[in-house]
Amino acid sequence: MPQISKRAENMPASPVRKLVPFATQAKQRGMKVYHLNIGQPDIKTPETAMEAIRNIDLTVLEYALSEGNIEYRNALVTYYHSLGFTDLTPNNFIVTNGGSEALNFAISTLCDDGDEVIIPEPYYANYNGFANTFRVNVVAVPSTIDTGFALPSIEEFEKKITPRTKAIIICNPGNPTGYLYSLEELKKLAEIALKHDIVIISDEVYREYVYDGHQQISMLEFTELKDHCIIIDSESKRYSMCGARIGCMITRSQKIHDAAMLFAQARLSPVLLGQIAATAAHENDQEYIRNVREEYTHRRNVLVDLLNGIPGVICPKPKGAFYCVAELPVDDTEKFAQWLLEVYSNNNETIMVAPAGGFYSDPELGKKQVRIAYVLKEEDLRRSVELLKDALEKYRISFNL
Amino acid sequence: MPQISKRAENMPASPVRKLVPFATQAKQRGMKVYHLNIGQPDIKTPETAMEAIRNIDLTVLEYALSEGNIEYRNALVTYYHSLGFTDLTPNNFIVTNGGSEALNFAISTLCDDGDEVIIPEPYYANYNGFANTFRVNVVAVPSTIDTGFALPSIEEFEKKITPRTKAIIICNPGNPTGYLYSLEELKKLAEIALKHDIVIISDEVYREYVYDGHQQISMLEFTELKDHCIIIDSESKRYSMCGARIGCMITRSQKIHDAAMLFAQARLSPVLLGQIAATAAHENDQEYIRNVREEYTHRRNVLVDLLNGIPGVICPKPKGAFYCVAELPVDDTEKFAQWLLEVYSNNNETIMVAPAGGFYSDPELGKKQVRIAYVLKEEDLRRSVELLKDALEKYRISFNL
Ligand SMILES: Cc1ncc(COP(=O)(O)O)c(C=O)c1O
Ligand SMILES: Cc1ncc(COP(=O)(O)O)c(C=O)c1O
Repeated sequence: MPQISKRAENMPASPVRKLVPFATQAKQRGMKVYHLNIGQPDIKTPETAMEAIRNIDLTVLEYALSEGNIEYRNALVTYYHSLGFTDLTPNNFIVTNGGSEALNFAISTLCDDGDEVIIPEPYYANYNGFANTFRVNVVAVPSTIDTGFALPSIEEFEKKITPRTKAIIICNPGNPTGYLYSLEELKKLAEIALKHDIVIISDEVYREYVYDGHQQISMLEFTELKDHCIIIDSESKRYSMCGARIGCMITRSQKIHDAAMLFAQARLSPVLLGQIAATAAHENDQEYIRNVREEYTHRRNVLVDLLNGIPGVICPKPKGAFYCVAELPVDDTEKFAQWLLEVYSNNNETIMVAPAGGFYSDPELGKKQVRIAYVLKEEDLRRSVELLKDALEKYRISFNL
Repeated sequence: MPQISKRAENMPASPVRKLVPFATQAKQRGMKVYHLNIGQPDIKTPETAMEAIRNIDLTVLEYALSEGNIEYRNALVTYYHSLGFTDLTPNNFIVTNGGSEALNFAISTLCDDGDEVIIPEPYYANYNGFANTFRVNVVAVPSTIDTGFALPSIEEFEKKITPRTKAIIICNPGNPTGYLYSLEELKKLAEIALKHDIVIISDEVYREYVYDGHQQISMLEFTELKDHCIIIDSESKRYSMCGARIGCMITRSQKIHDAAMLFAQARLSPVLLGQIAATAAHENDQEYIRNVREEYTHRRNVLVDLLNGIPGVICPKPKGAFYCVAELPVDDTEKFAQWLLEVYSNNNETIMVAPAGGFYSDPELGKKQVRIAYVLKEEDLRRSVELLKDALEKYRISFNL
């Protein structure tokens, strides 16, 4: 039998992969499962985007340009100009199959086998997957729940830099923690990048969803990082159009852009229909985003307050994105999450959560934590927390905790 | 300035990349350019597919399952059952962003840095790109225009096998040559794969387009290759929906499937809308494909006969796909292709062709050849060959050939 590659052997499974069969079985038993485990919002895609799809008058669904069609890149330019980055032109953008492909391009453009990327943890689990695809090592800088996942001192980053370090990846605001970087922190990161001649890959796919009047600061603010910065963006979360598979990679570096274009050309083209939908969505930008931001603010408030009301649960209040990491009074959240699907039932209902181990370089660090996405409407969130509270009691009794 | 990776530095540019700026400039000068250089057909996407898009009644464009939604995988299963492969189930399929992503998954699942894949040349140029992305070396087995690109003796393949050989990639029918593999050849390839425990990656994205009553033989016929075969398929060419970005990877090997799924999960989801369009397209399968096949047969006949009528041009008649490789009486087709865009004009019209160097491991081998795609309607093809003939005369005079 042929062997699979080492890169395949070492691919990390997604944090919920092991749980999926249990969720499927639960549903087959007639259980209702509330999905708090993934970043798939129930928020409606903008009607303008759906209209653009329904009104499509093409007769041939042709390849788009490898870098993305000009109409859509123009829409992106308008959007970025409205954010204040008026120097950007269509040539700074490569349209990708979701932010996921942009991350792939960024890592493959910068890194070879055995190179290193530094990432504050807990972090978006698929960074491990993308890094491993190219045999790149993730070097984690820890942040912890008791400080609300505040970024460790910037010196901690510097300590991890070696001759093989090619980039620092940050996610701002962060999945899974909802952490929002301060100007001070970003400044220091920019300094380090310049000092050590490495690139900041700034994943800003949740940019629009920050709360309480806070403002996300894009790494694009730091024009001195012209040659040292790649932005990862996506329409998936901004416009709740995850299935459209439209994201982009942005850089002011001609060299990085040109190199990434070679990967873009090899795979020919990003999605045409998604570009049409996203172009339309950008037209009524502001109102839609304001409404969705309000909705998420509300959901977060409901969720986090209810969670912190459960004895033994700790959940720092996230400032952005639509996730929170909560510590639960259990022995092992992987075991607990499986038990929720396999054993627990309250009126034939249960919840699915993401054990946080997969968001750490060492799964032990997240053994008592889960990530909860507030992508469901208030009523469902309330019911979910009710179920969680009840489940925790029963689990603790069952296992004598 | 940060360095780009070696994998980026070594990425081959697409065979026409250098020409694109010249084409753009020609158009800016008001020239009409006939695009014979790419596999973008002018054939209409099936109306059923466009209708499915226009009638979409979703309110949220959600992520699809990483392996593809079941509705679409069921449509694929029905299609493959109609081809006779009745053992296949939805679990043999991973839906991908075009055949391109399927190729990426196949190579990353099987190969590590420094591993080798054997490919008969000339071959689809992006195989170089995908291989290089993972630092995999392409080992070419040559075929030549004077034998109509017949496959070299199977012993030639065997000679190239080393302990690092992980796969043989074939494209059947082939881009760029239109070559169709015989049962005999495929049998021998299957034997080699088993004997040396390597995998055949069979790219069959042009499967439907074979002519003159010939039948494509899928590598799936060889059930003894259960653990040694990956099929690459795509809706791009079958249904002229290249911009939908829907393809798939098929294998009977549970091990290869499971490993490839890890890469599929890291990138979350293939395109939702494209799956909906492709599912619909598969409903009126047979009639559409029959019509398109007739159209391509006709175009091929017109094109190849006219080409062979030009003094000094040699063009073997392809049995499948929609490309041919022609030898031209010029010194260097890269120079000639650029001259066509930069200098040549006949009534403000010119043509763009793909110099064939990029389809060979050693570009010198293709120095006198071009690839011509018969993706334009008859009238345009006739005019294009007229232009080519005229251009060849003028070019030969200009350069004293
Ligand atoms: C932090 C982060 N980056 C990137 C992505 C990729 O999303 P997509 O490929 O849908 O744009 C996600 C999706 O959950 C994410 O959470
Ligand atoms: C031989 C071959 N394989 C794969 C592809 C990939 O096409 P797509 O990604 O659109 O399915 C192409 C496109 O031209 C091709 O010619």
